[in-house]
Amino acid sequence: MNSSIILLIYCKDSRNIIAKVTNFISDNSGNITYLDQHVDKDQNIFFMRLEFEITGDNFSIDEFKLKFESDLSEKFDMNWSMATSQDRLKMAIFVSKYDHCLYDLLARYRSNELNVEIPFIVSNHPDLKLISDNFEIPFYHIPVAKETKAQAEEKQLELLQEHNIDFVVLARYMQIVTPKLIDRFANKIINIHHSFLPAFVGAKPYHSAFKRGVKIIGATSHYITEDLDAGPIIAQDVSPVSHTYSIKDLIAKGRDLEKIVLSNAVKLHSDRKVMVYNNKTVIFS
Amino acid sequence: MNSSIILLIYCKDSRNIIAKVTNFISDNSGNITYLDQHVDKDQNIFFMRLEFEITGDNFSIDEFKLKFESDLSEKFDMNWSMATSQDRLKMAIFVSKYDHCLYDLLARYRSNELNVEIPFIVSNHPDLKLISDNFEIPFYHIPVAKETKAQAEEKQLELLQEHNIDFVVLARYMQIVTPKLIDRFANKIINIHHSFLPAFVGAKPYHSAFKRGVKIIGATSHYITEDLDAGPIIAQDVSPVSHTYSIKDLIAKGRDLEKIVLSNAVKLHSDRKVMVYNNKTVIFS
Amino acid sequence: MNSSIILLIYCKDSRNIIAKVTNFISDNSGNITYLDQHVDKDQNIFFMRLEFEITGDNFSIDEFKLKFESDLSEKFDMNWSMATSQDRLKMAIFVSKYDHCLYDLLARYRSNELNVEIPFIVSNHPDLKLISDNFEIPFYHIPVAKETKAQAEEKQLELLQEHNIDFVVLARYMQIVTPKLIDRFANKIINIHHSFLPAFVGAKPYHSAFKRGVKIIGATSHYITEDLDAGPIIAQDVSPVSHTYSIKDLIAKGRDLEKIVLSNAVKLHSDRKVMVYNNKTVIFS
Amino acid sequence: MNSSIILLIYCKDSRNIIAKVTNFISDNSGNITYLDQHVDKDQNIFFMRLEFEITGDNFSIDEFKLKFESDLSEKFDMNWSMATSQDRLKMAIFVSKYDHCLYDLLARYRSNELNVEIPFIVSNHPDLKLISDNFEIPFYHIPVAKETKAQAEEKQLELLQEHNIDFVVLARYMQIVTPKLIDRFANKIINIHHSFLPAFVGAKPYHSAFKRGVKIIGATSHYITEDLDAGPIIAQDVSPVSHTYSIKDLIAKGRDLEKIVLSNAVKLHSDRKVMVYNNKTVIFS
Repeated sequence: MNSSIILLIYCKDSRNIIAKVTNFISDNSGNITYLDQHVDKDQNIFFMRLEFEITGDNFSIDEFKLKFESDLSEKFDMNWSMATSQDRLKMAIFVSKYDHCLYDLLARYRSNELNVEIPFIVSNHPDLKLISDNFEIPFYHIPVAKETKAQAEEKQLELLQEHNIDFVVLARYMQIVTPKLIDRFANKIINIHHSFLPAFVGAKPYHSAFKRGVKIIGATSHYITEDLDAGPIIAQDVSPVSHTYSIKDLIAKGRDLEKIVLSNAVKLHSDRKVMVYNNKTVIFS
Repeated sequence: MNSSIILLIYCKDSRNIIAKVTNFISDNSGNITYLDQHVDKDQNIFFMRLEFEITGDNFSIDEFKLKFESDLSEKFDMNWSMATSQDRLKMAIFVSKYDHCLYDLLARYRSNELNVEIPFIVSNHPDLKLISDNFEIPFYHIPVAKETKAQAEEKQLELLQEHNIDFVVLARYMQIVTPKLIDRFANKIINIHHSFLPAFVGAKPYHSAFKRGVKIIGATSHYITEDLDAGPIIAQDVSPVSHTYSIKDLIAKGRDLEKIVLSNAVKLHSDRKVMVYNNKTVIFS
Repeated sequence: MNSSIILLIYCKDSRNIIAKVTNFISDNSGNITYLDQHVDKDQNIFFMRLEFEITGDNFSIDEFKLKFESDLSEKFDMNWSMATSQDRLKMAIFVSKYDHCLYDLLARYRSNELNVEIPFIVSNHPDLKLISDNFEIPFYHIPVAKETKAQAEEKQLELLQEHNIDFVVLARYMQIVTPKLIDRFANKIINIHHSFLPAFVGAKPYHSAFKRGVKIIGATSHYITEDLDAGPIIAQDVSPVSHTYSIKDLIAKGRDLEKIVLSNAVKLHSDRKVMVYNNKTVIFS
Repeated sequence: MNSSIILLIYCKDSRNIIAKVTNFISDNSGNITYLDQHVDKDQNIFFMRLEFEITGDNFSIDEFKLKFESDLSEKFDMNWSMATSQDRLKMAIFVSKYDHCLYDLLARYRSNELNVEIPFIVSNHPDLKLISDNFEIPFYHIPVAKETKAQAEEKQLELLQEHNIDFVVLARYMQIVTPKLIDRFANKIINIHHSFLPAFVGAKPYHSAFKRGVKIIGATSHYITEDLDAGPIIAQDVSPVSHTYSIKDLIAKGRDLEKIVLSNAVKLHSDRKVMVYNNKTVIFS
């Protein structure tokens, strides 16, 4: 059996930690095919991402994990995760009425650019059901009103748990997500904000950009935290604009940024290339 | 005599204003070689930039201006300015200790990329005198301390008036400019701020960018107003960064942005391609 | 009746041409709301794009055109076109099997970002019929083989004529278009080439980019001429890559460029903002 | 004694090579602080860059190298190099008359952005001696004419050898470098070409870009090989342009690209972050 395994680690930096991890893998039938690491010198934190192949016939990932736990991770007090490249993350998409990000995600999904499963799409409006149907993905319409918000969130949580969802993508979902959901999916809810954060936090960033007269607009994909638009940034991109752009023009131009930045972030997350620490991300190559 | 004239206009938008201006110029011996215009539909304001050549032997720009005043500008209540392409603006440079923006401006000045005169350079430190000497530009060292700030500003104003300075460039001048100077040179003091405004207003923007974990850094050139880093934006640019960038790396990368963005803004201003209205700029092509 | 009219002109540059055109419009009930012009000084060619509104009750565009012809265009030997903003261009899309550009065009079409009609989609393969169906656009499958190529082209031409198609978009249509079609639609067939032209002309540009080890890849949208990949360039964009990119990665990254560059070009063309002269384009703002 | 060491390796890829190298370093008193690697799967070549610190009192880099040779590099048939971070590379600059790249390099050198020594500057013209003087770097004027070219090159080679030059930067040096020099400094002569290679190889690329009507221009820094403008690419960058740009405008805009791209390449080379294989570069982070 041939299997490729992805290992993510972070822990306090310490002497020879790279050599110890590579040794462990080598001594346990693994052949490392990729390694990238980073040290946050301010915080003295070590981050590493490895890919390795196992060629032995009797390899058991569960035994390997146990051994890794006892031989290495306890000693270094590591936060770590291990997954095979076949393990596709389960991703739920939340939308409202805008379709450009949804189209972009689904088109990439269908062309196998995104290594995920998409068990369902949730929306507070029925408008995008047709698109979900076209891509043959179950669509749940869960309306959200002020008085029903808590109840709606319960339904969302049920769906997420029932389908063993790994992470959530807010593809221009125009509702504030509450702490209950955020706690259950810490650093696992990816949002797209239509500005170059931290500029223009909050509602109507294109209107603010127009008023301020900026010469470049942007979009930012980040993990949701309880502080509005202040979570760890995964990806950003920008586009030049001029005084000739109306607010409508900014919005149209921004759609291209939003969809590409969000899809980039989703790809990085689903390829297990993002680590979060101290409200910032390490993005592996 | 052949002369190329640049005309800038803004006023309330009104029917047929383009035709009336082009007509006037045509009827008064001018041949229009360039025209760009913009209407701010929110504010109903019309902006225009024209270049035209005069071929008549007896042309007098002063008579032309008087006629323009009586025949056109009064009727439309225009704000306008007229200059020949030979009229080079007089630019003063204020610096402190950082040399990268100064080098960039002076190298462009010497290669005739910037159509300006530079009567002098002012600094609150003596460090960059050597560079001024190399480029043979007078250097005035005017130290600024808390108790001498008002006095220093008086000296600066004297120099500016004595040399008939048209506009001032703060090339990483690390001092707050006070309202007195700003009033005298409204929309004529160009600053470079080392962030993508309105993100990271104020001191140490690279430190803030590092802390926030942004994936792109920027620089912004703008006219100084009394509100800190809130004046009309002339030019912006950005550069991708990653988690591997230390604050020192951000500062180094930012230097390239700062010098190019500032020089772009200076070039636009000195080519008379910038109009300011409502704390925003119109940048003509 | 209120109507907005777009006028495009090019001709030999001559004295006071701007004033004469603006005058004519003003004298014939038009109020100019937009004007941009360009002079190619090497070739001494003048280009202008105007938008103007007509407010008179009895305005007839046909009479206006006749008058423009006799009073102006003949004197200056102008190439010109006039259209109302309501006149939406009819656009045919040719595809093969790749769907990313098609999706992008159709999503923009549905969100009214593109001011066109799409009477039909043609393909040499049946694969993308489903997408056409989803967007409720007629789909014609016209297979192309070596021996049937001429016959297939006849069918394409019939469709184009029958539907009064104004311009054709090759959205990753993997066939060489022959002179017959090119002649009938000179500067009206928009192609997307998946490289930064003139680098990597011809087939498999991503393979060539990989082999050459470039650090940036690009995409180019241009009008088809008889010389392969050598027609007038409408739009280009680029994206950074590195040694870590496999050919497959370049292709995936390139898809984002291709779709956005092609859609930009289509938008510019359908907004009548492109003029072609001397195998180059003038792109109005 | 504390010392930081940079190790570069390339060789045929083989099982567990990462673990074996990290092990060796760890077993010989080294603490790895940085590791990046790349496998060219087409060619089956392994590349690695490591930084490690030595803390032992009696460490000798010469002994370490000998041990590395016998224990590792021979077995894996490695190409490798080892240097301490204190070893600054010696860089010679060749210029003609353009000063923008020279200014940029020297300003970075003086602000300690470039970790190099610059023993001298060579030019075939005397014009830039003043700048060299300002930065207090010896300047050698070696005129080059058709009949004296071989002789001039001899003088250049003498200077390069006498000063133990590690690499040469052609900062807009407007002469073809001959095979004799290229052979002695294989992958050690860095050139800046003022186009987005492989577009516009050869002389006057801005003229060609103007003629082709491209919407983006670029600059490329690469190692010189015997094939004109075909050597391994180190860095590239681009900038948007439009039909309004004259050739002179393209040249002015291009200067900003040239200087930044060249300085980036020089920084990467002097930080020992570039490896060359098969006419391509691996650029470590």
